[in-house]
Amino acid sequence: MKKNLLIAQSGGPSAVINASLVGIIKKALSSKGKKTFNKVYGGINGIEGILDRKIIDISKQLQKADKVTFETFKRTPAMALGTCRYKLPKTVNKDYKNLFKILKEFNVGYFIYIGGNDSMDTVNRLHEYSIKNKEDILFVGVPKTIDNDLNVTDHSPGFGSAAKYVASSIINTYLDSSSYSQKSVTIVEIMGRNAGWLTAASVLARKIKSLNNAPHLIYLPEVAFDEKEFIKKIDELTDKINTVIVAVSEGIKNKKGKYILESNRGTNDKFGHAVLGGVSKRLESLILEKLSEKKLKTRSIELNVLQRVGSNTISRTDMNEAFESGEKGCEYLMNGQSGVMPIYIRKDSSKYKIKIVPEKIEKVANIEKKVPKSFISKNKIDVTSKMVEYLSPLIKGQTAFYNDEGTVSVFSFDKEDFVNPNDNG
Amino acid sequence: MKKNLLIAQSGGPSAVINASLVGIIKKALSSKGKKTFNKVYGGINGIEGILDRKIIDISKQLQKADKVTFETFKRTPAMALGTCRYKLPKTVNKDYKNLFKILKEFNVGYFIYIGGNDSMDTVNRLHEYSIKNKEDILFVGVPKTIDNDLNVTDHSPGFGSAAKYVASSIINTYLDSSSYSQKSVTIVEIMGRNAGWLTAASVLARKIKSLNNAPHLIYLPEVAFDEKEFIKKIDELTDKINTVIVAVSEGIKNKKGKYILESNRGTNDKFGHAVLGGVSKRLESLILEKLSEKKLKTRSIELNVLQRVGSNTISRTDMNEAFESGEKGCEYLMNGQSGVMPIYIRKDSSKYKIKIVPEKIEKVANIEKKVPKSFISKNKIDVTSKMVEYLSPLIKGQTAFYNDEGTVSVFSFDKEDFVNPNDNG
Repeated sequence: MKKNLLIAQSGGPSAVINASLVGIIKKALSSKGKKTFNKVYGGINGIEGILDRKIIDISKQLQKADKVTFETFKRTPAMALGTCRYKLPKTVNKDYKNLFKILKEFNVGYFIYIGGNDSMDTVNRLHEYSIKNKEDILFVGVPKTIDNDLNVTDHSPGFGSAAKYVASSIINTYLDSSSYSQKSVTIVEIMGRNAGWLTAASVLARKIKSLNNAPHLIYLPEVAFDEKEFIKKIDELTDKINTVIVAVSEGIKNKKGKYILESNRGTNDKFGHAVLGGVSKRLESLILEKLSEKKLKTRSIELNVLQRVGSNTISRTDMNEAFESGEKGCEYLMNGQSGVMPIYIRKDSSKYKIKIVPEKIEKVANIEKKVPKSFISKNKIDVTSKMVEYLSPLIKGQTAFYNDEGTVSVFSFDKEDFVNPNDNG
Repeated sequence: MKKNLLIAQSGGPSAVINASLVGIIKKALSSKGKKTFNKVYGGINGIEGILDRKIIDISKQLQKADKVTFETFKRTPAMALGTCRYKLPKTVNKDYKNLFKILKEFNVGYFIYIGGNDSMDTVNRLHEYSIKNKEDILFVGVPKTIDNDLNVTDHSPGFGSAAKYVASSIINTYLDSSSYSQKSVTIVEIMGRNAGWLTAASVLARKIKSLNNAPHLIYLPEVAFDEKEFIKKIDELTDKINTVIVAVSEGIKNKKGKYILESNRGTNDKFGHAVLGGVSKRLESLILEKLSEKKLKTRSIELNVLQRVGSNTISRTDMNEAFESGEKGCEYLMNGQSGVMPIYIRKDSSKYKIKIVPEKIEKVANIEKKVPKSFISKNKIDVTSKMVEYLSPLIKGQTAFYNDEGTVSVFSFDKEDFVNPNDNG
């Protein structure tokens, strides 16, 4: 008898993680998919919800879904199945056993998890446990991260859209600040704890000549941040130009490796990462203090969660690739593969083209892909043309969120219509 | 001999103030406009720049402009001519005399100023001075304000686009926060010192049913804010639902009329207004302090300047109306009118339609149009269906900022190619 497919999402939201979900669902519900899978289930709030048996019947809920529904679903930012920040421990504990018990209870033979680094680690652990214990369940991961810090793959679904949001914010911020005749410094704080890809995407604003080379300073977490050097640079720049825009990663650290703002909330998240934010305010104060005689108009802008779920700046390239990653992940399960995830390989050619291939998750998970030295300028406060080449194709293509009536459609599941496992064979 | 037209922009940027500028320019450069005006000049950084003779020749700079240039120009947020926050004093001083001296030096017979309340006040003073001193210069204002606080007119150019940005931010924030299973409160801080129109626009997110009635609390500056009541509401709401979204105006005050956060920068702007921001952080801390036992995930999001120059959420209705306001303002000058500005009259009918008519500036300037009681719910933490009816048509229609290549075009003048007044007749 055919077994069921269980899909879940995990980690931080992105603008296109639902596009990956739709890719999986459409493939699973296709005539070919139906040969492999019995029902398509969704786990609510990732592993955490699954451990609570919060499982819905996607096949049933989408029975009458038409093309428009799927298109809306693809464009709905954040996670239709909800998320969690749960990470399986290294050593097998009762959660492993519970989880497999529940999967078998729901006759699940296939599990696919969409998420970032930590989620891929979880998929890998489950895959290894499954093999070791000769369980008949296959595990596949589908990548998602606005941080673009997944190893091996050229880039990750979710990054292109966030990058587009960041570039757009720099453009708008510059136009706003440069409307004034006063000398000003505007600090834009961008997500990214340890990898500076998203902060680097601010460079895309420079394609507009009249932006006068904004952002003028780009601070990545890969480079040790020196407050004195920063103030010196601001002093020099504001002597020369009126409108200075600084792009700064929330995760910048001093040369001792300590975050410039260790934490503005005094708490750590469930993975033990410091909850950051507020670096730009810190730099703003620093300028006001050290360069007070210059009477600079200083402002800090935290892009906050809007950068990861920016529904009005979804890159069509990113959305389509996210969708295809989902399809591929589902195909891997249909081919009987486990412990793999789809990665992007970029062809070395003048025209941007990617190929999606399976890769062993163990090669990807738990290794943070940082910005390489060749992408960082020698002066350490800028990125190179290689970075621009790398980034440019990822933000291409428009998508529409608002319709002409000024209204928005978003897709949502009934997240409380749980499956009764006894209904299954 | 024909006289020159001088155009300038003033006050805070908006997403469509350049659309008004294009409306003026296109009308002035039309065959009909050419019968009235000699050259079309632009004052850089408003009255302040004009006092420094920073005047460019728009006719010359746009000599070769094609349709695409004008379309790009219309969609470029913030101010192509730059801005200032200069307000003419009530009593005539040397600036009045200097200004008229310069206007005559540049053979200016027509002056048109695009801006908000304070800028309209300036136009009115210049108009009155001109009449009193029998100067042969006409003064017209074109409204602009994301705050929507201009009196008499149904609404103001710039508001619809900012409203769309706010609604969109609430939608995206809800989708992000509700992806998590944890109980959370997210506070979205919206611009508006004394008028709550823009904060009220958050209600438009509610058109999406799956948003579960977000935003759940709407705090306008028109209503005295009570911290105890706020905490009580948050406590009640988080007992009932998982994801609470609060829309709060930066300008909320306690019952004594004092701003909840008097100032987070300790400075006042040039008009003597307190520089606000940071109210949401204050409310976030309050929740963490007073409801600590509930362990709520609490986050504050300051929409900051991006809400006023949101190039990706420009309302086509707003952009077109802004353009037409510019055209009308220019027409008033061509008809020999002075001391007037175009206002919107909304037809009372099922279909949204506005008529643009001239109104005496003295009736509009210096009176802040606040949200009327009929638009505020009896419980004072929400708005009524009248508000929703009023707001809904203003955000209709899409515009494109990014092209399909993932690039953006923005328009810019050469702001340093100043006119030599001796070149004029």
